[in-house]
Amino acid sequence: MPEKTFGNVLQELRREQGLTQEELAFRSSLDRTYISLLERGLRVPTIDTLFKVSKSLGTKPEDLVARIEAGR
Amino acid sequence: MPEKTFGNVLQELRREQGLTQEELAFRSSLDRTYISLLERGLRVPTIDTLFKVSKSLGTKPEDLVARIEAGR
Repeated sequence: MPEKTFGNVLQELRREQGLTQEELAFRSSLDRTYISLLERGLRVPTIDTLFKVSKSLGTKPEDLVARIEAGR
Repeated sequence: MPEKTFGNVLQELRREQGLTQEELAFRSSLDRTYISLLERGLRVPTIDTLFKVSKSLGTKPEDLVARIEAGR
């Protein structure tokens, strides 16, 4: 199941951008605790969430997905 | 919200492969009615579903997502 890998990639990208979970949550109109759950692989995101966080991180959603694929 | 676009892309790819909803559902271990709901944009898929249907359609998940992006 890729969701843990989604969590790793999300955390990597967030840290690369120097953002806190709080800042990413604010940019994405998501709750901070949800960002934490996603990063720990405890929630499986919908593609809507994929598009939201990708945009907030200034990356294309397909690039985020490609990084998940590469990590599998 | 991109889910309707996901539905269009899913239907396009399925038809390009000459598959029925039944066949795609079987390959993806999903229910046929769920495939129909996805194609009509009435359900928002998780990234797990994205990975499952992409694999069944013989396409990379990032390529499917890129097609959604292009359709926006």
